[in-house]
Amino acid sequence: MPDETAYAPTDRTIPTRSRERAAYDRALVHAILDEAYVCHLGFVRDGRPVVLPTLFARVGEHLYLHGSTGSRPLQMAGRADDGLPVCVTVTHVDGLVLARSAFHHSVNYRSVVVHGTAHQVTDRDEKRAALNALVDHVVPGRAADSRPGNAKELAATAVMRMNLVEVSAKLRTGGPNDDPDDLSLPCWAGVLPLRKGYEEPVGADDLHAAIAVPDYLTVL
Amino acid sequence: MPDETAYAPTDRTIPTRSRERAAYDRALVHAILDEAYVCHLGFVRDGRPVVLPTLFARVGEHLYLHGSTGSRPLQMAGRADDGLPVCVTVTHVDGLVLARSAFHHSVNYRSVVVHGTAHQVTDRDEKRAALNALVDHVVPGRAADSRPGNAKELAATAVMRMNLVEVSAKLRTGGPNDDPDDLSLPCWAGVLPLRKGYEEPVGADDLHAAIAVPDYLTVL
Repeated sequence: MPDETAYAPTDRTIPTRSRERAAYDRALVHAILDEAYVCHLGFVRDGRPVVLPTLFARVGEHLYLHGSTGSRPLQMAGRADDGLPVCVTVTHVDGLVLARSAFHHSVNYRSVVVHGTAHQVTDRDEKRAALNALVDHVVPGRAADSRPGNAKELAATAVMRMNLVEVSAKLRTGGPNDDPDDLSLPCWAGVLPLRKGYEEPVGADDLHAAIAVPDYLTVL
Repeated sequence: MPDETAYAPTDRTIPTRSRERAAYDRALVHAILDEAYVCHLGFVRDGRPVVLPTLFARVGEHLYLHGSTGSRPLQMAGRADDGLPVCVTVTHVDGLVLARSAFHHSVNYRSVVVHGTAHQVTDRDEKRAALNALVDHVVPGRAADSRPGNAKELAATAVMRMNLVEVSAKLRTGGPNDDPDDLSLPCWAGVLPLRKGYEEPVGADDLHAAIAVPDYLTVL
């Protein structure tokens, strides 16, 4: 029976270095995934690696990725009986870490790496739920406030699913870790926190003037 | 003789969909790369894809990536006589695009995908220059205001280089592209621009009070 609070480390999810930065806690992994707008999807084509940015959503212990039915990885996931081996990585850069020494410069980050196999979703209800999740992943509450996909749109969209099984997070927080001998150097040291969130919403050119910015956009 | 203003498209850098979003202009590609703090490095290990976030810097038409001498891809790049086949991808999410229909939701983004082969840098001067470029890539001007790496630090760091040859950018800008029939729907539509840049610098706990925040940090 799987551990309810953490993913089991595997050979691929135990880093070769900075092991103290690795984490397997499910709640932490979910939070990192849910905060990201895009993931980086890796797959192998003709023996060589390909990495593409793409939208995704998490539903429980599944990740859903979508694209046009003509997109390369989705076609490959649909063709292969055994699914498409993929690696999905999500990274937040939270701050730039400036140390006194060039060597100890770093970034504060939170990342999740998911190894697995992607399969095309063929069940109509699961596909519809996944597409709603993709919209709600970008802005929670938005799916209910937009026109749902019709039959033609659903047919033009392919969705693939992978299970969260072989998963790890990696993170760095805090200030610079300078060598004791460097602490007396006269240069500034510290962290530049990156800005998060978004600016004021910009209405579409053809937006009717009577339509106000909805609450679910102003609370973020 | 290579085109001085654009990369030549190849089978791998011509997208299967949304071809109007693809671009090969060198200046545009350079700007997208230079603005990013991390890239996503893809490689193949035991026949399966791996995608890891990592720091990088561009120097002319080269990309430099660095890591511990113990890190997996750097060891692989050092072992393989022919180098390590890699795909390096950089993505900026600039805004969330909310359409009236779920189907037309999108993001405004700028991405660059580089296909190529990474080789370990063994030349001492090139390695030192690459490490300076990595520090200056995060904060321009910082390399000159920190202690340079010593022999031990240089030996503990591995650097790999790839050439910018098979390269493409892809971008989306502007508001939602709703179907004409949806324009009268009563839901809000537009773009949420994501915040960029960073907050006030936070000095290290052990920073001497007399050391002010340097100019190269306040202008950003």
